[in-house]
Amino acid sequence: MNEDLLIMIPGPTGLPPEVREALARPQMGHRTPEFAELIADCTAGLQYLFRTTNDLLILTASGTGGMEAAVTNFLSPGDPVLAVSVGNFGERLGAIAETFGADVTWIKSEWGEPADVDLVGRTLAAGTWKALLFTQNETSTSITNPVEELSALARQAGALTIVDAISGMGGTPVLTDEWGLDVVVAGSQKALMLPPGLAFVSVSEKAWLASETATMPRFYFDLKKAKASLEKGQTPYTPNTSLFVALQASLNLIRAKGIENVWRRHAECAQIIRDGVARLGLKPFGDRRYASNVVTAFCPPEGVDPKAIIGHMREKHNILITGAQGAYRGRFLRIGHLGTIDRGQCERVLAALEETLKAART
Amino acid sequence: MNEDLLIMIPGPTGLPPEVREALARPQMGHRTPEFAELIADCTAGLQYLFRTTNDLLILTASGTGGMEAAVTNFLSPGDPVLAVSVGNFGERLGAIAETFGADVTWIKSEWGEPADVDLVGRTLAAGTWKALLFTQNETSTSITNPVEELSALARQAGALTIVDAISGMGGTPVLTDEWGLDVVVAGSQKALMLPPGLAFVSVSEKAWLASETATMPRFYFDLKKAKASLEKGQTPYTPNTSLFVALQASLNLIRAKGIENVWRRHAECAQIIRDGVARLGLKPFGDRRYASNVVTAFCPPEGVDPKAIIGHMREKHNILITGAQGAYRGRFLRIGHLGTIDRGQCERVLAALEETLKAART
Repeated sequence: MNEDLLIMIPGPTGLPPEVREALARPQMGHRTPEFAELIADCTAGLQYLFRTTNDLLILTASGTGGMEAAVTNFLSPGDPVLAVSVGNFGERLGAIAETFGADVTWIKSEWGEPADVDLVGRTLAAGTWKALLFTQNETSTSITNPVEELSALARQAGALTIVDAISGMGGTPVLTDEWGLDVVVAGSQKALMLPPGLAFVSVSEKAWLASETATMPRFYFDLKKAKASLEKGQTPYTPNTSLFVALQASLNLIRAKGIENVWRRHAECAQIIRDGVARLGLKPFGDRRYASNVVTAFCPPEGVDPKAIIGHMREKHNILITGAQGAYRGRFLRIGHLGTIDRGQCERVLAALEETLKAART
Repeated sequence: MNEDLLIMIPGPTGLPPEVREALARPQMGHRTPEFAELIADCTAGLQYLFRTTNDLLILTASGTGGMEAAVTNFLSPGDPVLAVSVGNFGERLGAIAETFGADVTWIKSEWGEPADVDLVGRTLAAGTWKALLFTQNETSTSITNPVEELSALARQAGALTIVDAISGMGGTPVLTDEWGLDVVVAGSQKALMLPPGLAFVSVSEKAWLASETATMPRFYFDLKKAKASLEKGQTPYTPNTSLFVALQASLNLIRAKGIENVWRRHAECAQIIRDGVARLGLKPFGDRRYASNVVTAFCPPEGVDPKAIIGHMREKHNILITGAQGAYRGRFLRIGHLGTIDRGQCERVLAALEETLKAART
């Protein structure tokens, strides 16, 4: 185990000492008054993070499990849904809907571009739609979508919004209630500074209504059962108790700082990284007007293999950054800056990148 | 947090110091050579535990998620399956198959009885079956089923065996290959002495063949994708990295002791608990010939509320035991004895129970 590794990928992130201490605590029973108190406090803390008074359910699974819950609890096979994809995770959300039998129409942006709001609006207006599926922050391309606009269009069309906010939640504003988002998914290993293993799903009244007639099969990810159990201070199936304890520790840190300050720190660090990358003469990947505050993508210098940069950063500087996924593998690099991120870490990664580029050119 | 609480429920169990230390380690990247080494070692360790050379997949979910994977990857809607239930978890396995559209025929034993092997044999022989579903160790009733006999009957009938071994795996012999079990599910929070949050599924060649034509929808729990990713030292979706690190620590402890010795320790502790409970004049619940070596169920003395016993054990002795579930709520008590269990803990719980019964009678 590498104690000093600086993890600069878009999740999992580094863990604060409070979280590591919480993870190491003795085990507890999961059908006890102690656990009931714990889950109630975690739920309230997550509602604060999500900016919502909607129901908030915690699942023992990583983010993709939460995405599956967000689809299968509210849709039926054959339902017409519009899947707006701007990268790898947008593809995944639509693919889940297809796997469970939805009639999916796709609007795909080129990687690096945000959702085409006009096209989404025209398409929604021209048909009848059960739901609009989209990603809030697309980790694979470092693009944050215009969520508020997309949500307004969906509401106008009478469609549910099912939103993957896994990588953005906590690090960037996701104003669930103000923007009228029906189903929002987040995960533990991003701005919450926890190991992967918990997914969070918020559910509006309108979504619960849709759930009544939704026939896609679900068992482990049945949110209605999760809600019924939560009312008794429990989960339907054994929860990852240790990760709940750590979640409470993380939420306490965030609440103590204030969510607006956490967003501000992420925005400042993102700006430092973006400016630094530009100063090193590297071309940003993607539309900068929609640049994400939790991850930055940029192209390697002409003729330099991104893998060599990642390897040198790891071996020489003990810093973990990552490359591009899917069809763009080998085309750009990504630095994650979320969770425990601070100015010092940003400067450390930029200095290391500068040395790495020099080494690559010689 | 209660440092000295003795957890004597059938999972989650107490955590050894090696596991707690592992959980607190710094985070790692999940698409790195380090993780590839980790998952390879964990997979080999689990194959040792499962007594199998079959493929072994690790899912970030608790046991019920593994049960869902064990059903949806190998069956299609309409498939005739025989669900043998001897308690709450047998009901759950069959209910998952029903939820995803299988044509389920039930054989249910009275709680406290094992599977009716003769009836299962006659029923299998009288029809055509895609799979036989059953529980290896039924946590809710403290019964271990005659797994080898059930498996032989299923093979004779050409049916796959889909086996929930969540609570028994590691604490009792589950001889996957010797008994010809096709799909076997286990979980992290039982004899493996870990927090909940990982599920393990072994898959035989015959089961993979069935998987080729199985049409139940699955995405997060897609085992074929898990197998393809494992070949690259990864998982399809972000794994609970910290729990993998702890899993390795736990498997190292078990391998160092030898699995036969771990089984023997569980059997000895179970005998101490069963004898002790009898010595206190308490009636065992269920057929003793099939008594589980990881959990013991027994009836409270006439006129004594099980809740009062559980409460007194907790408040006076700092020991967590539990009651009965479902339709049997209030009818019996359960003591879990698995994972870190030793003679000293067994004697502590029996002494506390003796005092508790005295207090209840006065």
